[in-house]
Amino acid sequence: MTLQEQLQHKIDLKTKPQGSLGTLEQLALQIGTIQNTLTPSLSRPTILVFAADHGLSDEGVSPYPKDVTWQMVMNFVAGGAAINVFCRQNDIYLKVVDAGVDYDFPADVSVVDAKIARGSRNMRREPAMTAEECRAALQKGRELVRLEAGKGCNIIGFGEMGIGNTSASSLLMHRFLHLPIETCVGAGTGSQGEHFAKKTAILKEMSEKYDPQTAQDTLATFGGLEIAMMAGAMLEAAERKMIVLVDGFIASAAALSALRMQPEVRNAMIFCHSSDERGHKQMLKELRVDPVLSLGLRLGEGTGAALAYPLVQAAVSFLNEMASFEDAGVSNKE
Amino acid sequence: MTLQEQLQHKIDLKTKPQGSLGTLEQLALQIGTIQNTLTPSLSRPTILVFAADHGLSDEGVSPYPKDVTWQMVMNFVAGGAAINVFCRQNDIYLKVVDAGVDYDFPADVSVVDAKIARGSRNMRREPAMTAEECRAALQKGRELVRLEAGKGCNIIGFGEMGIGNTSASSLLMHRFLHLPIETCVGAGTGSQGEHFAKKTAILKEMSEKYDPQTAQDTLATFGGLEIAMMAGAMLEAAERKMIVLVDGFIASAAALSALRMQPEVRNAMIFCHSSDERGHKQMLKELRVDPVLSLGLRLGEGTGAALAYPLVQAAVSFLNEMASFEDAGVSNKE
Repeated sequence: MTLQEQLQHKIDLKTKPQGSLGTLEQLALQIGTIQNTLTPSLSRPTILVFAADHGLSDEGVSPYPKDVTWQMVMNFVAGGAAINVFCRQNDIYLKVVDAGVDYDFPADVSVVDAKIARGSRNMRREPAMTAEECRAALQKGRELVRLEAGKGCNIIGFGEMGIGNTSASSLLMHRFLHLPIETCVGAGTGSQGEHFAKKTAILKEMSEKYDPQTAQDTLATFGGLEIAMMAGAMLEAAERKMIVLVDGFIASAAALSALRMQPEVRNAMIFCHSSDERGHKQMLKELRVDPVLSLGLRLGEGTGAALAYPLVQAAVSFLNEMASFEDAGVSNKE
Repeated sequence: MTLQEQLQHKIDLKTKPQGSLGTLEQLALQIGTIQNTLTPSLSRPTILVFAADHGLSDEGVSPYPKDVTWQMVMNFVAGGAAINVFCRQNDIYLKVVDAGVDYDFPADVSVVDAKIARGSRNMRREPAMTAEECRAALQKGRELVRLEAGKGCNIIGFGEMGIGNTSASSLLMHRFLHLPIETCVGAGTGSQGEHFAKKTAILKEMSEKYDPQTAQDTLATFGGLEIAMMAGAMLEAAERKMIVLVDGFIASAAALSALRMQPEVRNAMIFCHSSDERGHKQMLKELRVDPVLSLGLRLGEGTGAALAYPLVQAAVSFLNEMASFEDAGVSNKE
């Protein structure tokens, strides 16, 4: 029997009707396969939140001012954001990374300094990142994951903060999945009516302006510093056989970028939730993914990953701790 | 401002786009309303698992032998079932109640003895319960909840174990929601093909045989001892302003019975998941309920309630712990 068959067998002999734990059974199978064992375990769960600004936000793609990016980073550091609350609740280590915020954080603030630039460039004038900036962000993401792996982390989620980053993500989705821009644009933090029409028009213009050929070029042209850093982090984590918790729309755009560079990364990824951001359901459908949660979240920060974590734990726990029909002396199906 | 308005206001001023925590925002509003406070809290989370046998199982409505009911109770007591694993993980107190199992448990086994009879009656000959048995089960359920409330529990979920109890639940759904029996019958623990056709035919026969008039009569005729006890427990918990975690198909049939006796019970109920058991989605739709999880579970035991609990905690935590825009110095929407 292959390890996968052995895992399936172990799952099927637990004291429950076959398949009755639904998604949790798929997760148990996936995690056992990633770790190459019948008795997987989770250690030092960690979420890295990458923050960066976007040049395109100068064009008014978001109803929130750009300052919200650094202000929210300060909120993360102070422990007052949603991701802080959910990480505390579920005993997840949280680290906030400045991937490219247009602000100088005071030295005593516990933000990891990985600033590649003070925000990505305004796509209306030039690609969001130069090839060098994009490469640096990918590398930095890899480095940060190596650091966590060194501390014993084997399950890692990624969140983001960046006013304007749903626009970048919509463009990546549009290009990587060959879908019309209209299918890929959503409200973001709250774009509606006229504002939404403006956002869509700008993204259409960007799509017509550029025609990058490779995956990395596409990421550099339309992405953002936090998205590129996250993609690098995902690539590294997957190569190290860590479990990758993918959050919502923006994290999925980073995942899509990573997948286009290295398709095997898919095996390591758990898609944590289906966001309320319009393009996300379609994106998950194209990736043939059945997300763990569907709570109508559209907040980012890694909140969906943090909230899904107890269910991932449950998948590992039932595999390790539940009795089999034989152990428990329970009659199986007639 | 009413308390509900104050709660909504508090939720809207948290550092996140309005509505971006989706279902969690609805839960926070509901829980604050139940507890009549802007700072709700959860204490001593508890799940009671009610077990009972069903006379109708003699007719072969389930592919599992009836002995599985008591065997699974022994598995609960030994800590090897799915519900044990999930309660341990999420720090939920678990109590197993013999509502009417056709077995004599040894005295040293930690099962709460609430046995009303050695299983419900075979509906093919007579109603599942006499009026007296049903009343006794409802009362016992209330009593058990009072006991937990006395210990400081303010959030309680209910699970069940009973070979044959999807059949009883299908009949309750059929009657209470006026839906054709075919819409209400599912695979249960694994009924397929010919077996499924037989199950459907028997349930049809039962539906034609009886015509109970009141909600309690309907419950007595088609229900089961664990379902009636659970309905009583739900009524008591709601009256005591406890939060009621409703599990899957069978628990929802109990909830439906409770709702038909006392419609206000609805306010206390959190529907924890959408089961893979066929009738359940339809049932939730008729109740106009948006369940917390949709993981393709169809195991019962209260597993969906135990798995949803961390998300309920998250709803309370964000309401209490997240910073507001003002507190955090974050700019709100322009």
